[in-house]
Amino acid sequence: MSTQDIAAGASGAQPDRTAESFDAVDVIRTKRDKGRLSPEQIDWVVDAYTRGVVAEEQMAALNMAILLNGMDRAEISRWTAAMIASGERMDFSALSRPTADKHSTGGVGDKITLPLAPLVAVFGVAVPQLSGRGLGHTGGTLDKLESIPGWRAALTNEQMMDQLEDVGAVICQAGSGLAPADRKLYALRDVTATVEAIPLIASSIMSKKIAEGTGALVLDVKVGSGAFMKDLGQARELARTMVDLGTDAGVRTVALLTDMSTPLGLTAGNALEVRETLEVLSGGGPRDVVDLTVALAVEMLAGAGKPVPEDEVRSALADGRAMDTWRAMIRAQDGDADAPLPVARENEHVVADRDGVLSHLDAFGVGVAAWRLGAGRARKEDPVQAGAGVEIHAKPGDVVTKGQRLLTLHTDTPERFDRAVEALEGAWAVAEPGTVVETPALILDRLS
Amino acid sequence: MSTQDIAAGASGAQPDRTAESFDAVDVIRTKRDKGRLSPEQIDWVVDAYTRGVVAEEQMAALNMAILLNGMDRAEISRWTAAMIASGERMDFSALSRPTADKHSTGGVGDKITLPLAPLVAVFGVAVPQLSGRGLGHTGGTLDKLESIPGWRAALTNEQMMDQLEDVGAVICQAGSGLAPADRKLYALRDVTATVEAIPLIASSIMSKKIAEGTGALVLDVKVGSGAFMKDLGQARELARTMVDLGTDAGVRTVALLTDMSTPLGLTAGNALEVRETLEVLSGGGPRDVVDLTVALAVEMLAGAGKPVPEDEVRSALADGRAMDTWRAMIRAQDGDADAPLPVARENEHVVADRDGVLSHLDAFGVGVAAWRLGAGRARKEDPVQAGAGVEIHAKPGDVVTKGQRLLTLHTDTPERFDRAVEALEGAWAVAEPGTVVETPALILDRLS
Repeated sequence: MSTQDIAAGASGAQPDRTAESFDAVDVIRTKRDKGRLSPEQIDWVVDAYTRGVVAEEQMAALNMAILLNGMDRAEISRWTAAMIASGERMDFSALSRPTADKHSTGGVGDKITLPLAPLVAVFGVAVPQLSGRGLGHTGGTLDKLESIPGWRAALTNEQMMDQLEDVGAVICQAGSGLAPADRKLYALRDVTATVEAIPLIASSIMSKKIAEGTGALVLDVKVGSGAFMKDLGQARELARTMVDLGTDAGVRTVALLTDMSTPLGLTAGNALEVRETLEVLSGGGPRDVVDLTVALAVEMLAGAGKPVPEDEVRSALADGRAMDTWRAMIRAQDGDADAPLPVARENEHVVADRDGVLSHLDAFGVGVAAWRLGAGRARKEDPVQAGAGVEIHAKPGDVVTKGQRLLTLHTDTPERFDRAVEALEGAWAVAEPGTVVETPALILDRLS
Repeated sequence: MSTQDIAAGASGAQPDRTAESFDAVDVIRTKRDKGRLSPEQIDWVVDAYTRGVVAEEQMAALNMAILLNGMDRAEISRWTAAMIASGERMDFSALSRPTADKHSTGGVGDKITLPLAPLVAVFGVAVPQLSGRGLGHTGGTLDKLESIPGWRAALTNEQMMDQLEDVGAVICQAGSGLAPADRKLYALRDVTATVEAIPLIASSIMSKKIAEGTGALVLDVKVGSGAFMKDLGQARELARTMVDLGTDAGVRTVALLTDMSTPLGLTAGNALEVRETLEVLSGGGPRDVVDLTVALAVEMLAGAGKPVPEDEVRSALADGRAMDTWRAMIRAQDGDADAPLPVARENEHVVADRDGVLSHLDAFGVGVAAWRLGAGRARKEDPVQAGAGVEIHAKPGDVVTKGQRLLTLHTDTPERFDRAVEALEGAWAVAEPGTVVETPALILDRLS
């Protein structure tokens, strides 16, 4: 209150003093008071924020109001469109084949993109997979591929198109021209505790995916301790929101909700996960990794209008066709597909403390351990170690004996072992022999 | 989501990288999730914001979370204490008399501070009234006094103490040393639509009043169209919160809730309101102004431990004692108490459009008209016109005849008349002759 407060309340009575079509305070007030933002307000606020006319503190207040008061489907759709409009859009319509893309909300040991892209390409659907680097306890797809000697993440749009036409699959760094509003907004959300707003998460992911110009999109929404969404209800809401956004933008979109209570596969770390990928592409590898890769490939092929039965997809892993495409894809980006992968200089083991059954192995704990060993980074500018990470020798439900290795920790910098082991405290336990351990299904739900 | 989102969620897993005792994101998250801020979190966030360690966008997000999720009495009390601790405190304990202060949340035609300060001083209670300039549609006490030739608002602390001892009343500019956190925070709230949060309004007002070191405080919380609080429920909540804050800080605090649906008195404008003040100090003046001045004086005297019966207070207006103190107070600040007051160069009249009864005269409309005529400012750096404003010739319930003057508009710059008249459209109406107009009581409630 005081005279200053009164002035703010009465500011609508004064004429506009700028050439802007809206006033940021009015837009914030609308959402603060649980109103619906108009399409014009949304277009203006996203654009004006990108131009620097709406200040960081104003967008922060608006984000908090959105987090607490929500946005409806039409608002989120428009918000996403405004973010797409802030930058360039890619166009794959000149390609001779349809395109399909996958996005995972991030998990521990989630190397699925690596075998998936070449596998889908085998069946005549192009996969333009624009990826990022890791930050925090989940690995980044580009960090993993960069453990392959010579491989480079940066391609021009032309190189990308050529590779999609020739090889059918490309995993590369997203250009900075896509949805620049999102990049600016993300940095703000990170420091203002507004990351967790479902409308903002959904529009952030989908603005980039829609700007990438894919025809079909499969979302892998992770649920559990190692995922951003800890419970199924929230994950389903996020998945529903993203599927609606994709559909509204004309992208055939499907979401799978998948378990992330325990790590995916038997490795978490860059070169370690490439090694596991090679096992999968050789017809072997852990069953959960293979099953999820195949399930996502089936969805992507169907979304792209080229449905392929699951058995046939699976056979492309067994008979080497997916491996051939992988090798072509790696080579096209100057990677040496035959070079030995980096191995960390030091390792240490975590062993079972008694006979029994491994009752749980927490994804978050393993992810943080791999991160602390050097597989991930705390800040964007930090380097990662190619060989660092965690190898998993037993999964929940497995019978173990006292002294048996459960995990192997790898790092080039052994002073990191202590804090990695700390992260694993309570992250696993061995139950009485004979205990029946119920493990969640890998695929919890499907939304389309 | 994406790996970035995960990283933010997991940031607690990394060691502190700074010497700060808290992380702004954690503090914001606490309030965002409807938690209670700890005393330590509050102390830290207010101090770190003042130091520039907590960024504007972080405080903006926190303010929006506070606006939407609230703070309890203990949180608001601590928040206020932290704002007080950001600056200096005044100390009147060396004075030979007790002190009492008044704060109005701002209204149209609210010149009460002017007759009130000398009136209270007559009875041996010192009134240190630190005031501000107007912004928006309500006038500022300093702007009004500055229409008196020679009068100056800026005093040193020593001059202020001397004047309190000698004259017993001082109205001057608040130094910038009091609650600097509040000044910074207010500017932020103004651009982020977070002005309207009761905890933030209450702590803003009370941090300054408590830092001023008064022993007793009377709050005049305005309710109605011309006030910040449009409804009684909200005004009562604000008053309750402020009374609690004062009490928690050891200041004897009382609040009156008073009507601001129609202007107070018969003038809105700087020199116009001084003229009306002189009428009141001469034993005349409009009844509402006199009644409210006396009611507030009675409360202040009681709060300061020197209770005086209402009749006796009233007699100090009639017998010239309050006028004597006024003249001494004005002279002590170099004002010429005998000089003629400035008069605006131009005037225009608003007349009744038919015979009947004035059914309403809206405070907000009159306030905006006075503002647009030049009595107020839109930005802090704008000048004000001493003579500009609105004179009121009829109040709600008065019988009027067609063509009779209802209002006189004054300005030095006649091009302002049109927009002032626009502000008055719908702000008044003449009802059928004989209509009974119910006007609200002046004092709606009292809280202590």
